Amino acid sequence: MKGDLHLLSATEAVGHILDGRLTSEALVRACLERIGDDRINAWAYLNPDIAMAQAQEMDRIRKSGRATGPLHGVPVALKDIVDTRFMPTERGSPIFAGRKPEADAEIVDRLREAGAVIMGKTKTTELAFVHPTDTVNPHDEDRSPGGSSSGSAAAVAACHVPLAVGSQTGGSVIRPASYCGIYGFKPTRGVISRRGVLQTSASLDHLGTFARTLEDLALLTDVLGSFDPGDPASFARPRPRTLDGVHAEPPVEPDIAFFELPILELLDPDARDGIDAVIEALGPRVERLPVADALTGLIEVHLTIHEYEFVQHLDEVLAQNWDKVSPTLRPVVERGRKISEAQYQDALGVKASAEAFFEKHFTEYDAILSPSATGEPPLIASGSTGDPVFCRIPSLCGLPALSLPLLVGETGLPIGVQLIGGQEEDDRLFRTAAWMQRALQDAA
Amino acid sequence: MKGDLHLLSATEAVGHILDGRLTSEALVRACLERIGDDRINAWAYLNPDIAMAQAQEMDRIRKSGRATGPLHGVPVALKDIVDTRFMPTERGSPIFAGRKPEADAEIVDRLREAGAVIMGKTKTTELAFVHPTDTVNPHDEDRSPGGSSSGSAAAVAACHVPLAVGSQTGGSVIRPASYCGIYGFKPTRGVISRRGVLQTSASLDHLGTFARTLEDLALLTDVLGSFDPGDPASFARPRPRTLDGVHAEPPVEPDIAFFELPILELLDPDARDGIDAVIEALGPRVERLPVADALTGLIEVHLTIHEYEFVQHLDEVLAQNWDKVSPTLRPVVERGRKISEAQYQDALGVKASAEAFFEKHFTEYDAILSPSATGEPPLIASGSTGDPVFCRIPSLCGLPALSLPLLVGETGLPIGVQLIGGQEEDDRLFRTAAWMQRALQDAA
Repeated sequence: MKGDLHLLSATEAVGHILDGRLTSEALVRACLERIGDDRINAWAYLNPDIAMAQAQEMDRIRKSGRATGPLHGVPVALKDIVDTRFMPTERGSPIFAGRKPEADAEIVDRLREAGAVIMGKTKTTELAFVHPTDTVNPHDEDRSPGGSSSGSAAAVAACHVPLAVGSQTGGSVIRPASYCGIYGFKPTRGVISRRGVLQTSASLDHLGTFARTLEDLALLTDVLGSFDPGDPASFARPRPRTLDGVHAEPPVEPDIAFFELPILELLDPDARDGIDAVIEALGPRVERLPVADALTGLIEVHLTIHEYEFVQHLDEVLAQNWDKVSPTLRPVVERGRKISEAQYQDALGVKASAEAFFEKHFTEYDAILSPSATGEPPLIASGSTGDPVFCRIPSLCGLPALSLPLLVGETGLPIGVQLIGGQEEDDRLFRTAAWMQRALQDAA
Repeated sequence: MKGDLHLLSATEAVGHILDGRLTSEALVRACLERIGDDRINAWAYLNPDIAMAQAQEMDRIRKSGRATGPLHGVPVALKDIVDTRFMPTERGSPIFAGRKPEADAEIVDRLREAGAVIMGKTKTTELAFVHPTDTVNPHDEDRSPGGSSSGSAAAVAACHVPLAVGSQTGGSVIRPASYCGIYGFKPTRGVISRRGVLQTSASLDHLGTFARTLEDLALLTDVLGSFDPGDPASFARPRPRTLDGVHAEPPVEPDIAFFELPILELLDPDARDGIDAVIEALGPRVERLPVADALTGLIEVHLTIHEYEFVQHLDEVLAQNWDKVSPTLRPVVERGRKISEAQYQDALGVKASAEAFFEKHFTEYDAILSPSATGEPPLIASGSTGDPVFCRIPSLCGLPALSLPLLVGETGLPIGVQLIGGQEEDDRLFRTAAWMQRALQDAA
């Protein structure tokens, strides 16, 4: 099998590998060649020998007739906050330069059991928060790929790898997916274990996935999910099977809600026009709803919990290494230190009310439609990885959120559309998303 | 749905539960009624409230439209050497009376993720070794159910539950399966994690499964398997999917080996006649092979490793509680203490050679046919749970081994037939077993 192997989807690649028409070695070599000298600065750690050795082992296993997995021989990138024993994990901070974890994260075990090749570690903003990496957007090198999962999103968009793992506490999966023109997914809180991943906010941290097709996104998500008592948020119940969702037909056409939130004023005109066009194309399936009282103030509540917990978890090491903390992060930490326990407890109370609101909401609607970001990717010169404002509510409430690369902005750069689902209904959300993609194609 | 719900296979039950024709609550209640006052003494711990609460939760999850698992709402029994936080784990020894583990075993997490109901804990011989429980064989209360997984095998045979987990270090799954007339499986070493399970021999301990159909056996086995670095024997590769094996057609008719081992002399006449009839019915598919040099002495080597490691792992607690050690176990421990490090190292060397022999063997043959046990279940009055002699070699070499309830002895009691496969070819072994069952039905 020849040609542009780096362009294969994970689903295609694994099919060819199991058929014997493609080796993992050839696929991984093609991806390494594609990466070349990594002009977009997506990778924090990449050792071709380690990647190739895994590929060769997966080929040996297949040839021996032993068991193969759903990602057999497919390269996957990991955000550099995910602990790996066999590669350094530096968390995007000089504080952790050269850090070698003693154990792999739970998701690394799940990937190995699925036969995946751990390709390398991708760049993360400093401690998965505000200070950017030097990663550039593969569509325009003057633009940001978004953050905090900057390298993961850029590597998938640049066809370095078909799949990558990221994380989201505010908007760190959905926003870079939007800016890089790929699919991104943040599952329901507790579906994917966070054991062995940098903790920045116990209440808000989620792992998430990137891919160039909806099917690939589901394939990776299903592999990563597991019940793991090592993560207090992990639940002792079956995981939704998102791949089944992709392949399912909705029993009736879905009902989608669109909230007229005040934050829509933050949208760039092209993004606003784009989302309006999507709503129009979907016709009566989308219902425009006034803002419910329960939604007021949630953006602020998210920020309070995020900054308060970030300081709780990390201030000891930050204070000891203040010279290694970026000027971008310092004021955030200083703000977090001033949040009182009472303010934090109030915020947790509002969070609980909001979760109850959404539990009821999703008995009536299949999904909420929302922008993924305020518009096209921001200029790197702005110093920002973009505004995560449209991601804060699903992150706060642990709702599954999916970004689909449906729109193109005025300068030709990608803009994502977000679908948000009910807790533990990740499969239903993928079903709705697949339906929506087909409906929009039919309408076009 | 009414009728004898306790007779349903797990595969049937989960199908009905997912269809909404059966509730887990009704199924678990029917099983609890079947158990009644447990006349066969299969259960070490059974709390109907704990079982029913899990069943009700699984029903709630299904009704809410949330994700369901492959064992959704199906009750599973656990041998009482598997740690559970929510039920005591006493290991069949007064030394551990009332013991409450702080964490669940890895397989408990896997069962919860699959939606299973943990029904209770089944009786194990003392420390999963030689001293019997008071469990009786469901087919004849004067007979032993075999050991060490006595309660697990008896509970499945008596239709208390469709599925149970056992363990095998010598012959503790295959032999009780044979005596109780059900299916039993010991997978390749490293497929199922032993984290949180009593360690009696790090080199030889395996977890295994019991069911009343081959398909059910595969269903449970696939749920239990996982890569878990918490068990040093666990391997970082995909698991064989035994359920796919059950449903697969062999590409050509399998080649099965039968070794003319000297231990065949230990067979009762009815068991010898039975196995000969099976070989005859399979005709040219079975090749009778002379004993290879590599097989000589393996029974003894297994015993050396088992007794040496048992003492290494447990002698500290045994010596401190010698008054609580049974008169059956004491001489075994005393024998183990006398095995020298050199004898043990020699035994490990022979084990490695035998594994290499089998690796080559299974490039030529699909399976080895063997008796599961020496004959019908022994009388309880004999004081023994039976001779595990036909199970020692697969336990030593970590080979997958399956017992099929194919024969009936001269007093009408069950006798199993064993099939042994190549390492990590558990799926191929199930494929061969399913083929063999069909071939024998056709020949009958």
